[in-house]
Amino acid sequence: MNERNYYLEDIPLDDAQARLTAALEAAGRGQPLDGETLPLTAALGRVTAAPVWAKLSAPHYHASAMDGYAVRSEDTRAATETRPLALTPEQARPVNTGDPLPTGMNAVIMIEDVQQSGENILIYHPVAPWQHVRMVGEDMVATELVLPANHKIRPVDLGAVAGCGHHTVSVRRQPFVIIIPTGSELIPADRAPAPGQIIEYNSLVLSAQIQEAGGRAAVMDMLPDDHSQLAAALQAALQQQPDLILVLSGSSAGSRDFTAGVIRELGQLLVHGIAVRPGHPVIMGMIGATPIIGVPGYPVSAALTGEIFIQPLIARWLGLLSPIDSRPRAQAVMTRKITSPTGDDDFVRVTVAQVGDRLLAAPLNRGAGVITSLVRADGLAHIPRFSEGVDMGQPVDVILYRDLDVIRKTILALGSHDPMLDLLAQYVAIRFPGCRLASANVGSMGGLVALRRREAHFAGVHLLDETTGDYNIRYLDKYLPGVPLQLVTFAYREQGLIVPAGNPLNIQSLDDLPRLRYVNRQRGAGTRLLLDYELKQRGIASESINGYDREEYTHLGVAVAVATGIADCGLGVRSAAIALGLDFISVGWERYDFVIPKEHQAQMEPVLALLHDTDFQAALAAQPGYDIRDIGKTVITR
Amino acid sequence: MNERNYYLEDIPLDDAQARLTAALEAAGRGQPLDGETLPLTAALGRVTAAPVWAKLSAPHYHASAMDGYAVRSEDTRAATETRPLALTPEQARPVNTGDPLPTGMNAVIMIEDVQQSGENILIYHPVAPWQHVRMVGEDMVATELVLPANHKIRPVDLGAVAGCGHHTVSVRRQPFVIIIPTGSELIPADRAPAPGQIIEYNSLVLSAQIQEAGGRAAVMDMLPDDHSQLAAALQAALQQQPDLILVLSGSSAGSRDFTAGVIRELGQLLVHGIAVRPGHPVIMGMIGATPIIGVPGYPVSAALTGEIFIQPLIARWLGLLSPIDSRPRAQAVMTRKITSPTGDDDFVRVTVAQVGDRLLAAPLNRGAGVITSLVRADGLAHIPRFSEGVDMGQPVDVILYRDLDVIRKTILALGSHDPMLDLLAQYVAIRFPGCRLASANVGSMGGLVALRRREAHFAGVHLLDETTGDYNIRYLDKYLPGVPLQLVTFAYREQGLIVPAGNPLNIQSLDDLPRLRYVNRQRGAGTRLLLDYELKQRGIASESINGYDREEYTHLGVAVAVATGIADCGLGVRSAAIALGLDFISVGWERYDFVIPKEHQAQMEPVLALLHDTDFQAALAAQPGYDIRDIGKTVITR
Repeated sequence: MNERNYYLEDIPLDDAQARLTAALEAAGRGQPLDGETLPLTAALGRVTAAPVWAKLSAPHYHASAMDGYAVRSEDTRAATETRPLALTPEQARPVNTGDPLPTGMNAVIMIEDVQQSGENILIYHPVAPWQHVRMVGEDMVATELVLPANHKIRPVDLGAVAGCGHHTVSVRRQPFVIIIPTGSELIPADRAPAPGQIIEYNSLVLSAQIQEAGGRAAVMDMLPDDHSQLAAALQAALQQQPDLILVLSGSSAGSRDFTAGVIRELGQLLVHGIAVRPGHPVIMGMIGATPIIGVPGYPVSAALTGEIFIQPLIARWLGLLSPIDSRPRAQAVMTRKITSPTGDDDFVRVTVAQVGDRLLAAPLNRGAGVITSLVRADGLAHIPRFSEGVDMGQPVDVILYRDLDVIRKTILALGSHDPMLDLLAQYVAIRFPGCRLASANVGSMGGLVALRRREAHFAGVHLLDETTGDYNIRYLDKYLPGVPLQLVTFAYREQGLIVPAGNPLNIQSLDDLPRLRYVNRQRGAGTRLLLDYELKQRGIASESINGYDREEYTHLGVAVAVATGIADCGLGVRSAAIALGLDFISVGWERYDFVIPKEHQAQMEPVLALLHDTDFQAALAAQPGYDIRDIGKTVITR
Repeated sequence: MNERNYYLEDIPLDDAQARLTAALEAAGRGQPLDGETLPLTAALGRVTAAPVWAKLSAPHYHASAMDGYAVRSEDTRAATETRPLALTPEQARPVNTGDPLPTGMNAVIMIEDVQQSGENILIYHPVAPWQHVRMVGEDMVATELVLPANHKIRPVDLGAVAGCGHHTVSVRRQPFVIIIPTGSELIPADRAPAPGQIIEYNSLVLSAQIQEAGGRAAVMDMLPDDHSQLAAALQAALQQQPDLILVLSGSSAGSRDFTAGVIRELGQLLVHGIAVRPGHPVIMGMIGATPIIGVPGYPVSAALTGEIFIQPLIARWLGLLSPIDSRPRAQAVMTRKITSPTGDDDFVRVTVAQVGDRLLAAPLNRGAGVITSLVRADGLAHIPRFSEGVDMGQPVDVILYRDLDVIRKTILALGSHDPMLDLLAQYVAIRFPGCRLASANVGSMGGLVALRRREAHFAGVHLLDETTGDYNIRYLDKYLPGVPLQLVTFAYREQGLIVPAGNPLNIQSLDDLPRLRYVNRQRGAGTRLLLDYELKQRGIASESINGYDREEYTHLGVAVAVATGIADCGLGVRSAAIALGLDFISVGWERYDFVIPKEHQAQMEPVLALLHDTDFQAALAAQPGYDIRDIGKTVITR
């Protein structure tokens, strides 16, 4: 039975959370968990279940704070610089730092301040009572509060707890979550998938999120899409008395989705479908006193369900703020228009960078299946309900995954795609810890436009000037008139036709294009300009090419289209063909430069330094299809 | 032999770090550690030792992105709203989300967009090629960079690595550190210490710091101060091939300090004494290729040595930024003058709070033995070399232990000490997660001065007006003229003489003071005003009281002085006497109010809410010596 249309609601985020909270409270599960006693050696990162009160004072005796002599203040009054006073061994008792003050003594003279004189010592100043004495309770007084409850234990906290006489501490039990992955199409990560099979990794991500939030997860065996097997697995999970059960869907939220039905049979279905993007088909229910969350199968939906619903639940049970509520937030300017369904809370993954004095948020791929968009994200732009989106240039609230300090050290490249930007990013990360190179592919012209709008620190470009045969310079005059900048060469790279391995269609040159299915690059890409130039040279009309309007945004995208038989060939760099084991028919070499506005010169220092780094140069030169003879050379500066 | 004067240098922080770095590099130990292969289930929080490249594309086949029908785009061209097109079961093949696209098909129509018509389906729109299809490599293309090296693995990273076909990942080996605690006076935390014995907890703090930074620590048995035992322990530790050995001193940096000598015998002594406060007697050396750090015994010195020298070393071996370099930083205004030795880098623990539009740093106890100053600290104010300190009201750079967002939610109380502020802080933490109440004791008058300087959100005060017998109101006119504020009652509390258990000196009232050794509160404290008032009533001159000028800053401080025999009695609240098991002779009840400037009203909401919270009221009422009959009542507002 296809239940989707019957039960999939679209209730707001807040309502869904409120329904779950109410159900938990009704079941007596809404409060932080009980404490368990742990030795201090195992307590780092755990959360105090009760306040810690000092059992002993620290110091617990009046202690010498210096190496020297313990004395009675009263005995020292007559000492002066000119008439030193002799104290007998009875009157001045040697003490080391930490020694208890001998009975009757009430001050310490530092060893540096005395002169030995036979058995006696000579002192030159009177000493105030309690000088250089650490009095009882200087640090902590017995019965005093040392740590509050609901406090995540840090290294120094362990010292304070031990120092006042405890060797154990009561910490909250770790919430225990059982994860049941379901989906007939799933296979584990250690097996090679056939078409139609999907590597199951949501259980890995959710387990790690639970661990990160302070919980403990156990993953059950994967189940096929089967009503009775799911019911049996839930019953088995309940036997282990978890605090929470997660049922992970396969990629389908559709006809094979039994979770809601099974929960309704065994308990109470609270929510089926939440108006939050990505992540719509979230399910919430209770079986007895145990909450169950059905997690959608698309990886981004699953991970965000973890951040928005599951980690906050773990945090509530620990008495902590949830990770998402603890993250720094900032307002940033959206670099593209984002449309958003009015009824939904929309969480858009964004790259965040500071360019000039503006904090910018550039939206990443919005597909729910693109886990790398979360890997690359610096934050989530939250577009609340009742908003239809955000216009380009408008401010948006961003929940940050990285500290603003780190974001401020991010170098943002927008422009032409070259796979070697990844290599450069590698070197930036290793050679300049704390610094990052982030890049997005918007084509060469897109890069120049981004620089004009002050939305990037530099752009990689390879724009052929048809009239001169030179690269890039003329386009700077057109797109960035009057902007002080530097044009620096990255590399020459070889462009050519990427064709299937063995070249079964015997493609020889661009002259063959009219008989082939082509895959093109997007408008504004340097590679597309190159194609247009070459077609014009050959007198081939673009309309005659099947697939001229099929656009990919990267060289690897073109290679994939060829590798999977969508197209017979496409123009791209040699490294992309090699990466996917395809053949390559050279068309020629082109110059790929970096355009660096003068105002970003300081920020760009790590990149510029690497262009002159012999290790990086060697690594780049070792890549087929790259020639580094002019790397780091300034083409023009203005 | 006392080597201290011979070898204790005072070299600058940077030089010390440079010496260690040079020695490590000479020994081939300066680079990040090698990788080890881990299953993804064990890799959370570990650091990639090499870039991760996609092994498979994701998706690795062209997949349906929807539940519906796979079709050939070409077959759908004729469909219109008014003239639906029928597709046969041959032309339209049912697919679920995630299914591979059947061979020959190149688009998917959503099930919602078709009408069943016998065996056929009716469609109302043409479909573009690749609509609702997740093409191969949409997420990752085989060979693409997924994670860079030196990257700390987060939950979503695990998903991406698994999704492109890896089930293991190469992560840096955890740096292994052996810790040798030394000091004849030390005992473990699970034993009750006698006078002169010190609970050893530096090994606990440093182990936790190492763990926090990504390393692994093993603690050897404690050693007495003995040259040959230390040499033997170092040799035994070296057998285990650690990356680093720490020798922890006892509390003494003096005559019992053998570490430097032993290192010089077995290897090379690089540094003995670093110009950094707290933490001077830090030792660095190499035995063969293994670095040794001698850590000073005072707990604050030890913990800061961990943050400044040891965690950065662990981080270097992992290819990460060190925790101290990753912390947020801010400029704050110092609320007190701080003097600092010119030659030293001085790290001053501070409470940080935002009051009005200023970020304030209030210095905490600077004693190297006061571990609770680190527990309470929101950050470290760094006073660099060649500076003599910071004046009150001057800006200072603070390395923050908490995010600024958390700090902005901190409510700062400066004023009279009452032990029940801790109880209130407890309730704030539990009832208002993310919010904190921090308090410092500066006496009632100090609190009013702090409010005038806008250095606190509220002040607790109990200032007796000798002329009227009322409390606080007259002092507001004097100290905060014209400031709009609210005076709200916290509690009535019982003041009296704190005397030893059993009252051996048979103290009956304040009339007995002239024959006793007294311990007083500091000038400006309400309790001191109360004493002065009572003495005047009785015609007792303050000069006649032995100990009138011995000042403690808290009720518990007074109780400690009595408990340890330093004084025979002192004036304080009943709860302090009870806390330390002392006797109490009531002098009377006084009103303790909160002074809340109107401008901080919003920030104060959690505190005001708790004054009306029945749970909190009950908890306060249960404390001996407190009367809550007027709790939360506004005395005056203006």
